[in-house]
Amino acid sequence: MSDIAPENSGEFPRTERTRVTRKPDRGSYDRELIYGILDQAFVCSVGFVVDGLPFVVPTNYVRVGDRLFLHGSTASRLMRTLGSGAPFCLNVTLLDGIVFSPTATGHSVNYRSVVVMGKAEVIESPDAKLAAMRDFVDYVLRGRWATVRRPSEQELKGTMVLAVPLVEASAKVRTGFAVDSDEEYAGSAWTGVLPFQWTPGEPLPDPRGKPGIPVPANIQRYSRPQ
Amino acid sequence: MSDIAPENSGEFPRTERTRVTRKPDRGSYDRELIYGILDQAFVCSVGFVVDGLPFVVPTNYVRVGDRLFLHGSTASRLMRTLGSGAPFCLNVTLLDGIVFSPTATGHSVNYRSVVVMGKAEVIESPDAKLAAMRDFVDYVLRGRWATVRRPSEQELKGTMVLAVPLVEASAKVRTGFAVDSDEEYAGSAWTGVLPFQWTPGEPLPDPRGKPGIPVPANIQRYSRPQ
Repeated sequence: MSDIAPENSGEFPRTERTRVTRKPDRGSYDRELIYGILDQAFVCSVGFVVDGLPFVVPTNYVRVGDRLFLHGSTASRLMRTLGSGAPFCLNVTLLDGIVFSPTATGHSVNYRSVVVMGKAEVIESPDAKLAAMRDFVDYVLRGRWATVRRPSEQELKGTMVLAVPLVEASAKVRTGFAVDSDEEYAGSAWTGVLPFQWTPGEPLPDPRGKPGIPVPANIQRYSRPQ
Repeated sequence: MSDIAPENSGEFPRTERTRVTRKPDRGSYDRELIYGILDQAFVCSVGFVVDGLPFVVPTNYVRVGDRLFLHGSTASRLMRTLGSGAPFCLNVTLLDGIVFSPTATGHSVNYRSVVVMGKAEVIESPDAKLAAMRDFVDYVLRGRWATVRRPSEQELKGTMVLAVPLVEASAKVRTGFAVDSDEEYAGSAWTGVLPFQWTPGEPLPDPRGKPGIPVPANIQRYSRPQ
């Protein structure tokens, strides 16, 4: 992808935490692959530790070059914990299909999953915060920022923005059919893959919206990456 | 739902860990609502702590009454850690739509999310393990178990099955349009919700499958809950 800095092209290092140990053939450390998976989504599950106990919460993200940004209320446990420099682990999983095998244990799912480990940095500068807010909006819908009211000073103050340098990450991907041995296929069960996709429906206009504004083409035919 | 034990109907207790503190109006502790969200999916993100550091990995689950079951290789870090009785946090998030607001910070997503906290118990009895394996297969596709080869003794031995009692859980749900004040709607941006759904595509037959087996109706028209 064009927005990978040349010094960061290629692979992420295999660290003890990101190394794919189970079914290592499904693992990848390729930056382009990992960014491609991240850019398909905008919601991740973030895990962090408070008083020795694990928490996992869903949150929005945006990838900008070799960083992710997270944001949220300055009052949220997630933001307070990550903002204090606590280590976190972030997961994005795209479910691509159900694998129907001739054997019970051969059933599986096709998926693309990314894990990012790290520590976040609080973005303090109002300009940098504003830029990240723009990225959040335009990452979900390219060009949207220019059409809506920008954040007020108060809104900016109440929002914490965190930058997550992408230095420790790995992907795990499963594709294709069942991997049972040929002789398992003697039975009469249908075998194959049922693919799945996260699909947009018909846009629903806000009843408070001004009448006569057409649905923009990039909402009517929404696709990712943006 | 009919499979909630009468003594467990109603609400989960609000604990310090599951209490929804941010936007508490979106929080719920209702068992039926929580089970309904869990039953829409079969993949969750599990967070756990190893050497003080958080990990989050996706894994399959099945809900059976007031328990979830997880399974995996006895060699996996997730299974080893949870099998040792370590506390975990599990998240299921269904993304239902993008909320387009007239303001940058008013943008949001509609979602249904469940968090489960707890400790798992290793299922040791081969009969109970086998029953859980059946539940895993039939939770993904009702009736599938009866049509496929059952796990061998060896396959059962290599699989760890964990039971997760559903005692500490909460849901967080956002629905509807933007919540900006009326005067924000003066601009010219389209506002509304773009709904999303996880949609099955056309089943792809396994090239190694016996020819002439029709796609079962419940795969051709797959829907959840099963």
